[in-house]
Amino acid sequence: MARNFDDSARTPRRRRSDAPQKLPETPEEGVVAPLQEVLDGYFPQARARLREVLDDPELRPAFGLGLEAARARTTAALEKVLATGMPHGAFRVDQGGTGETGETLTGIEMLGHNDLSVMVKSGVQWGLFGGAVSNLGTDRHHELVSDLIELRALGCFAMTERGHGSDVQSLETTAHYDPDTQEFVLHSPTASSEKWFLGNAARDGRWAAVFCQLYTPDQEESHGVHCIVARIRQDDGSPVAGVRIGDHGVKGGLAGVDNGTLMFDHYRVPRENLLNRFADVSPEGAYSSDIESPNARFFTMLGALVRGRVTVGAAAGAATRTSLTIGTKYAHLRRQFAADDTLPEKQLIGYRQHRLRLIPRIARSYGLQFATNLLIKRIHDLEAEDLDRANLTPEQSLDLREVEAHAAALKAANTAHATDTIQEMREATGGAGYMAENLLTVFKADSDVFTTFEGDNVVMLQLAAKELLGGFAREVRSFSNLEMVRFGLDSFGGVLRRRTAPTP
Amino acid sequence: MARNFDDSARTPRRRRSDAPQKLPETPEEGVVAPLQEVLDGYFPQARARLREVLDDPELRPAFGLGLEAARARTTAALEKVLATGMPHGAFRVDQGGTGETGETLTGIEMLGHNDLSVMVKSGVQWGLFGGAVSNLGTDRHHELVSDLIELRALGCFAMTERGHGSDVQSLETTAHYDPDTQEFVLHSPTASSEKWFLGNAARDGRWAAVFCQLYTPDQEESHGVHCIVARIRQDDGSPVAGVRIGDHGVKGGLAGVDNGTLMFDHYRVPRENLLNRFADVSPEGAYSSDIESPNARFFTMLGALVRGRVTVGAAAGAATRTSLTIGTKYAHLRRQFAADDTLPEKQLIGYRQHRLRLIPRIARSYGLQFATNLLIKRIHDLEAEDLDRANLTPEQSLDLREVEAHAAALKAANTAHATDTIQEMREATGGAGYMAENLLTVFKADSDVFTTFEGDNVVMLQLAAKELLGGFAREVRSFSNLEMVRFGLDSFGGVLRRRTAPTP
Repeated sequence: MARNFDDSARTPRRRRSDAPQKLPETPEEGVVAPLQEVLDGYFPQARARLREVLDDPELRPAFGLGLEAARARTTAALEKVLATGMPHGAFRVDQGGTGETGETLTGIEMLGHNDLSVMVKSGVQWGLFGGAVSNLGTDRHHELVSDLIELRALGCFAMTERGHGSDVQSLETTAHYDPDTQEFVLHSPTASSEKWFLGNAARDGRWAAVFCQLYTPDQEESHGVHCIVARIRQDDGSPVAGVRIGDHGVKGGLAGVDNGTLMFDHYRVPRENLLNRFADVSPEGAYSSDIESPNARFFTMLGALVRGRVTVGAAAGAATRTSLTIGTKYAHLRRQFAADDTLPEKQLIGYRQHRLRLIPRIARSYGLQFATNLLIKRIHDLEAEDLDRANLTPEQSLDLREVEAHAAALKAANTAHATDTIQEMREATGGAGYMAENLLTVFKADSDVFTTFEGDNVVMLQLAAKELLGGFAREVRSFSNLEMVRFGLDSFGGVLRRRTAPTP
Repeated sequence: MARNFDDSARTPRRRRSDAPQKLPETPEEGVVAPLQEVLDGYFPQARARLREVLDDPELRPAFGLGLEAARARTTAALEKVLATGMPHGAFRVDQGGTGETGETLTGIEMLGHNDLSVMVKSGVQWGLFGGAVSNLGTDRHHELVSDLIELRALGCFAMTERGHGSDVQSLETTAHYDPDTQEFVLHSPTASSEKWFLGNAARDGRWAAVFCQLYTPDQEESHGVHCIVARIRQDDGSPVAGVRIGDHGVKGGLAGVDNGTLMFDHYRVPRENLLNRFADVSPEGAYSSDIESPNARFFTMLGALVRGRVTVGAAAGAATRTSLTIGTKYAHLRRQFAADDTLPEKQLIGYRQHRLRLIPRIARSYGLQFATNLLIKRIHDLEAEDLDRANLTPEQSLDLREVEAHAAALKAANTAHATDTIQEMREATGGAGYMAENLLTVFKADSDVFTTFEGDNVVMLQLAAKELLGGFAREVRSFSNLEMVRFGLDSFGGVLRRRTAPTP
């Protein structure tokens, strides 16, 4: 009864905006626990395990360190990540892993709440390099997989070249097979073929998974892009003969990630270094593959790597949520201007303009998190099915294509949302937001390149749009005439409603 | 004749996009020289003088330095800026300057093409600290003005406090006048009264222009916010007794600017240190001012400082134009994807999607530059009139208010455009854009806080909107009935046209 009378709608305005907001005292009370449960998604145990270590000072975001100090700190942090057991999910049981894909993807997402250098370096090591060797390789690469899981073998994902990022099919690095020695000769024939931007290259990597045009003696043209693993450094850290390593030095952020370059000068590696799950070369130099079309082969190989794209989007989402938390807390603490001298100054959150900076972005973060959780679950289930990717049924093929499109779309949506929101939080926290200790500029600088790497957002959106149009065509094709008319009217009505609606 | 037949509209598409673009060979030819002339605005000689020095390696943008090295470099760079003679324009001839306001404002804008730490430190020293002493002070501050122009006296603009940025009237620092010793006692009574974010405070400043609530013995309430100059460091760099100095350390950018904090503990300064152009305190402690209302007095003082706001917008515009140049050059060099195997890869600029990222932003940059040039000219002319700001005619008052509103609007528009465009150029140049050596991340990090300092953009836009509504009211008030009906129909018609127009 009293409660009804004390309805907040009847409370005078000025009291409402300044009354201390009653929040549940413990997470068990009220909405916090159920909300966390639903947001945590399908792998809450992975989140719980990471939450235990994210307060470790050596895993917290860092800033103002020199390049070498930042890199050394990040490399040391990988050991702490390994100790959680989280990376093992990305690898099959027979490879020394646990096969719990969802746990690893969620775990890497959780690193996004903290130091993005640690997240990216983890992604490079276990996701990209590890993913290439374990998904494109076979039993003969078993030892390398086991070494890379346990950080005995740090490696680069040597795909991007100076001349080609988005257009992977045009990579210029070559691998010519020499039957006499049963070796591949890796070579960088042009300045634009230099491998660029590779994490783990400038300082730590001992190995690289090198994407290159594959040539065998029986055919003049390339068999298309394949992946070959190669040592790039001795155990003591010096480069091997035939490999020239460069350092990108200072970047816009991610100081802890040692991005560098690789150039190959007729560098020979054993035939067995070809990651041969989808194609192989015999000792005599005969090329074989279960997938006939080079184009299909290429996309099958790339498809096996979709997980990296998912974690980039998911971790950007996590960094965004941490930034929103910082911005929202500040809005409840900071006061500026009073309506008149008898009133206390108003909290920033009390200004409608300020709530418009926060609340739609919080809502979008929730939406993106739900979508990302679902996508991770779907990939986890697909991996558990252990599909024969060289011989998919049409249904499986459609399913995979849809997952790839969702991964592309969510990569772009999550990272664009991060760029917009972290920037907005920096500005919404004024001068305080510009001080590195408040972390918003650190998240901003570190997450900036997320819109670019693992697939430029412009290209990702086109990929997603293409799949949507494909789905649309499949849907429309099955319509009866009546259904088609109804569909047309509905679409036209929607446009008309939008055009004549009052401006929001 | 032949020219007409070879019309570009008839040239096959593929040739057009890949043909080398004929550009004038020298700036004298074609559009470059006339375009530069019109963009250079009203003070081309200031631009020319700065262009001569901007290639000096010590004035180029820097990155990856430690905090102390970056600060030392920036402080040294100020001497080079001084040697151009540019700062003298901000000061009257009788103060040791040249009175060429437009030259200085344009010169500081030009620094925005290069290292924004040098621009901001110049702005703090000559624009904010120098502007306060020269515009709020009188003859008795002549020596300090002369010292600060020549960099013999580095100083802070101590306005913002931990608790108050936008709401300057609520500053908490106090100055109580003590007639016995004829001194002001500066004091920071609360944690939130600590002076924050001050450039020149952490390392170099010997002086501060301290904004504070002024109290005299004859009145219990404050006379409002006034400005008092105070020594904060000895010549040897150690803080004076009564002043505690803090260091903000690492920020999101502007590593060369030594932002810090000041806290006063009953710190005594001579009566003459009050900047007394608009108000004074007699030796006996009697307060006097030509401007009766404390509110009007406050806005008169702030109005005298409008130039800082203009340079922040103008320099952000310059940084944006440099970033657009980098992005546009890259779009002409970088190629990615070919329509088919017989064609060369397409330049990024050949993609409509990419042109949409560049061209509207270039157009907006032009527009903002024209508006900024005009505003600088108008301020230059106003300064040349040497108005009696304590006794303005209604017309002069309206004129000044309009200039202040334009300064606020252009500050917000220029800096928001910088934040959007530099970010877009970073993304449009892919991984290369993330490498610090390509400068986009440096411009991004350094210009980020421009939306916040010298007036938060949200507040600036409200100030501009308020003045627009005032102007609207003045206009509508003078309408006849018929004019009012016509105005209403025109406005309604405009809305209707927009709502029913085809989507662009």
